[in-house]
Parts: sequence; C-alpha cells; structure tokens
Amino acid sequence: MLGRTYDTQVCSAARALEVIGERWSLLIVRDALFAGATRFADFQRLGIATNVLTKRLDSLVDSGILERRSSTDHPDRAGYVVTQKGLDLAPVIITLTQWGDRWAAPDGPPILYRHAGCGGAIAEQTTCDSCGQVTDLAQIHVVHGPGMTGSPS
Amino acid sequence: MLGRTYDTQVCSAARALEVIGERWSLLIVRDALFAGATRFADFQRLGIATNVLTKRLDSLVDSGILERRSSTDHPDRAGYVVTQKGLDLAPVIITLTQWGDRWAAPDGPPILYRHAGCGGAIAEQTTCDSCGQVTDLAQIHVVHGPGMTGSPS
Repeated sequence: MLGRTYDTQVCSAARALEVIGERWSLLIVRDALFAGATRFADFQRLGIATNVLTKRLDSLVDSGILERRSSTDHPDRAGYVVTQKGLDLAPVIITLTQWGDRWAAPDGPPILYRHAGCGGAIAEQTTCDSCGQVTDLAQIHVVHGPGMTGSPS
Repeated sequence: MLGRTYDTQVCSAARALEVIGERWSLLIVRDALFAGATRFADFQRLGIATNVLTKRLDSLVDSGILERRSSTDHPDRAGYVVTQKGLDLAPVIITLTQWGDRWAAPDGPPILYRHAGCGGAIAEQTTCDSCGQVTDLAQIHVVHGPGMTGSPS
C-alpha cells in the first residue's frame, strides 16, 4: 500500500485525513452535526450509493466519530449519533465552508452557521496567542513539536 | 457520474471538497504553504506515485490554488507557488491539524504553527460575532443563506 495512504506522514493533518479523508465521510459528519441526520435513510439524502454509504458509516463508527444507537422501545430512533471526536470536526467543516463561500459560491453562502441562543454568526478565526488575530496567513510557519519522530514530512 | 462527485450538493463545504478533496491534494498544499515546497522534487517527499503527483499538481493549477512559475534565467527556481486561493486553505489545514493533534497524536503534536515575528502559537478558534468564543460546538446550527438554491443538502 506504499504511497496509497498517509500513514507514513508524521503530521496531524495527514493523520486526520487518514481518518476522515475518504470521499463522503466529512459530508456524512456534516449532516450528522448540522442537519439532524441520524438514520441510514437520512444520510441517503446525500445521494451516495447504498454500499458506499454503509462502508463510510461503518468506518466512522470504527474510528469513534459516530456511535450506533439502538432502541428496542423506539426502533424509529435507532441510528447514529456523533461522539465528541465527531463534534470536534465541526471547525474543519466550518473552515471548509468558509473557503468554499469565498472561492466557490458565486450566489453567496448557501448555508450560514449560527450560535444557538444568541443567534450570532459563527466563524473560524486564525489567532495568535501572543498578538491576537492573524490577518496575513502567509505569516504562519511551522516548527517541530514533541510528537515529531522519524523523518519530517 | 451521479453520486460520485459532490457537485449536486448546495453547500460550500461540499464544493470545497470537490476542489481539494482528492487524496493528497491538501497535503500538497500543506507542503507548499508550510514546508517551502515549490519544485516537483520537493513534493515527491510526500511519497506519492509520480503520475498521481503530476495529476494533482495539474489539478491544483487548474483550480487556481497553485500557479506555475517558470524562470528562464534561474531554471532551478521554476516550480509552483501558492495563490491567495491556496493561502486561504491554511485554516482548513490548521483545523485538521488541531483535530489530529487531539485525536490521532499519542506522542503529542508533531508540528506546531507559529506566528512569524512574535513567535506566538497559532490556532483556529470558533467564534460568535454576538457573544465571543464558542465553547460548546454542539451549540452551532445552520440556516439557509443567500446562495441556497435548489434542494437543500
């Protein structure tokens, strides 16, 4: 499998893509997080082939992003729920959305993120813990952290 | 191609994945943004098969994320440079990294993002323009924006 996976990459972005980089996986999480999707039929709205959807849901359960919820009393409530590991993908989906809003949304943003309660607009902001908000993304560089072992990538 | 692409999805996250969701594309952008990769040989460090790398670089150029830079005076400087559209992917890569740091980095973060000049730690923060920082990601919901046409997804 050399070269077909990211598992030789010592980088958390690569490891994240190894888990949620399969086509459709992030959109399944998006619908679970933000569109109230819980049942298999809910995710079929994505238009994925049934066998692919089954594989992706199984994979998301295996990696702890979704959990299966069964209910013998209320079979109609059986389905999938998002774990904390899945919830933590919200910022990834929001930054993807922001990029798409800027570069691939000629008619304006199709979807807006809002804060429950106050109704404020949600955004991901690039911040610096020393001087505040980062206005020029080109001013970001990388250094090795404690988890850097093996050859850098 | 029904069901094989995201192009029926009225959602900027889906449109973003349509452009940069191919395996390796985001890691190529990562190396261009943060590892100083400009030449074909630089990107070969990723361990991608040469034919796949060629396709991905061509695709990133076609979608305006990278630009080819040629230099007849300095052929050794020829290669690829990141456009503003590519630079705007930095927050996507940083949120992916943050998720991987939390959920897929048992030895600690392999790579840390720093702010040039002040050296501060860079992070993506989920913010609300009404009440400030969002501490509970479960409190985010979505509403239709001006670009929502056709069936919601």
